[in-house]
Amino acid sequence: MERAVRELWAESRDLLGLHSPCPDDSAASAVPRADLPPTPLAFLRDHVSPGRPLLISAAATRHWPAATLWPTDSYLTDALRSTAVSLHLTPDGRADALAPRPAGSSSSSKCFASAHVRRVGFPAAVRLIRASDPAAGLVAYAQQQDDCLRGEYAAVAGDVDAHVPWASEALGCLPEAVNLWIGNASSVTSFHKDHYDNIYAVVSGEKHFLLLPPTEHHRLYIRDYPAASYVPAQAEQEAEGEEHQLTRLKLQIEEPQRMVPWSSVDPYPASPEEAASFPLYFDGPPPIRCTVRAGEMLYLPSMWFHHVSQSPGPNRLTIAVNYWYDMQFDIKYAYFNFLRSLEIDHGSSNKPHASEGDSEDKID
Amino acid sequence: MERAVRELWAESRDLLGLHSPCPDDSAASAVPRADLPPTPLAFLRDHVSPGRPLLISAAATRHWPAATLWPTDSYLTDALRSTAVSLHLTPDGRADALAPRPAGSSSSSKCFASAHVRRVGFPAAVRLIRASDPAAGLVAYAQQQDDCLRGEYAAVAGDVDAHVPWASEALGCLPEAVNLWIGNASSVTSFHKDHYDNIYAVVSGEKHFLLLPPTEHHRLYIRDYPAASYVPAQAEQEAEGEEHQLTRLKLQIEEPQRMVPWSSVDPYPASPEEAASFPLYFDGPPPIRCTVRAGEMLYLPSMWFHHVSQSPGPNRLTIAVNYWYDMQFDIKYAYFNFLRSLEIDHGSSNKPHASEGDSEDKID
Repeated sequence: MERAVRELWAESRDLLGLHSPCPDDSAASAVPRADLPPTPLAFLRDHVSPGRPLLISAAATRHWPAATLWPTDSYLTDALRSTAVSLHLTPDGRADALAPRPAGSSSSSKCFASAHVRRVGFPAAVRLIRASDPAAGLVAYAQQQDDCLRGEYAAVAGDVDAHVPWASEALGCLPEAVNLWIGNASSVTSFHKDHYDNIYAVVSGEKHFLLLPPTEHHRLYIRDYPAASYVPAQAEQEAEGEEHQLTRLKLQIEEPQRMVPWSSVDPYPASPEEAASFPLYFDGPPPIRCTVRAGEMLYLPSMWFHHVSQSPGPNRLTIAVNYWYDMQFDIKYAYFNFLRSLEIDHGSSNKPHASEGDSEDKID
Repeated sequence: MERAVRELWAESRDLLGLHSPCPDDSAASAVPRADLPPTPLAFLRDHVSPGRPLLISAAATRHWPAATLWPTDSYLTDALRSTAVSLHLTPDGRADALAPRPAGSSSSSKCFASAHVRRVGFPAAVRLIRASDPAAGLVAYAQQQDDCLRGEYAAVAGDVDAHVPWASEALGCLPEAVNLWIGNASSVTSFHKDHYDNIYAVVSGEKHFLLLPPTEHHRLYIRDYPAASYVPAQAEQEAEGEEHQLTRLKLQIEEPQRMVPWSSVDPYPASPEEAASFPLYFDGPPPIRCTVRAGEMLYLPSMWFHHVSQSPGPNRLTIAVNYWYDMQFDIKYAYFNFLRSLEIDHGSSNKPHASEGDSEDKID
């Protein structure tokens, strides 16, 4: 079985033309790049249908007012000075990621940690984001995966296109959600997949993606972890729009216990032992790397696994907008579910979980 | 493994919306039907990308001169009266199908039998087709899967569209081949798949398809069979354009021996024992039935298994044109090859063959 699955990995990368063009050049990406947005037909035929990512150069968003306004120091804080936004707070910038289970729990293994989410006035949120520092135990990330650009951030939503015209025409629908992400280099998004076709547009700074096609499911070692959330270590003043004295967050296992299927793999493992626990990942083809710079757009096909880190722009922020389009549940999805149902006996156990499914959705 | 594969069958039919709308009505087909040809975008999005067939009603070819000319008794024989065409001759109408190995061979099992192909003047070919009768031991089928409409039949190629405009625009290319098929009810095409996106247009009579999605590969019990060909039982006059006295064909194993991977399943088995040998086929969801009538077009996605029988029109002929478009070898194809590499232990053995692959191509 393992041999057949490894052949599937190699063949799907071959057929999608996703072998790194130059293995010695870490800056070279295997993701196809276009100078101009594709026509709807070409996008559908050459990218959506085959499941092949596409990086579109800076021309994609040049006409957006956001392209010049948002990377400045003060435009957004002025425009949103009286707006409360959802700020995701963690001690280490790793929300929706595995973390050691809190002390005192029955097991020494890991849990799935979600951020402490607080509504904060936008200017205060930006101050907290810029001050984010895992060494100080507090990292802030302004994001909310609930169509927040058209919700909390409606006052500036007109600065970007309401949808991606060539994608909407190709996919036959408007985006289900448009989300805004404002963070700095301290925030990292762990490996996961979305049940959406995704268009990511970076407005300030850079986003660094590690990508694996859905055929490489088993390399992620998806297992069930108990859900946990960060909460303030002591009661604090919660009035919106005020600066907060957040001293410390602590992690709390959710009660009643809820299990979340999540990838066990950190692509930057803390030790050789950790890497050795996940041989299908670390002893396999390297993830496909792709950096999306300000002004560029990445099409990420549905069901692709992605890990995201970021670098801030001149305004000391990484700002991105992503458009989620409903994916088509078709024969590719049936094949994926079949693949996922198969067990590979190699190194660590990698059993499929009855509960595994849609709860992996909707992160970055 | 068998359980996982059966779930794959069920899920892919579910997701493609291919459950029979009315199990008790054999005339009802699960194949989506449209009154008008789709736009290129809708065709790509709703059919090519997901791998979902489409039947387009008679409007599809109404504007073709062929629609009115070819079903007549004499138009084609007049237009092609001095044209030699490739006529495929078998005793039973089953070319490119399994047949008992000829007497005297070392084994009692089956072989893969190809027709005796002879160049015959078109009027004589039509006489032989109309006289085809397995009881008399001779069935003729005018076909040649080598772009024959634009080759042997160039004199009448202008009676149909040179390509299917909405399909060409969607797929981004012109057809690789356009083939003409002229036969009667005695000719049957056994289960196989093509590495092409197919558009079938029926001009006279009807074609009856049994369809299985590529996910149901294992149900076909594809095994290696020695290639064989029908040859005249005695030397005959081979002059082109003359009526032939073909008394008898005999089957000859090719030398040196060549193996052809082919489906072992006849959907109309000769005995309950034969059906019992192929439980994954006969103890599984029924094939999807679809009749394509004169004037209609069927889009058959690449890699779909199909079995074809036919009924003649008023001119006592079944006439069809099919357009083969190069398929995209993408993640669906990688998944298919992975599926094919897996063994299911059930009933008969169903081992994948190293040689299995492209030689299944290009039949009907």
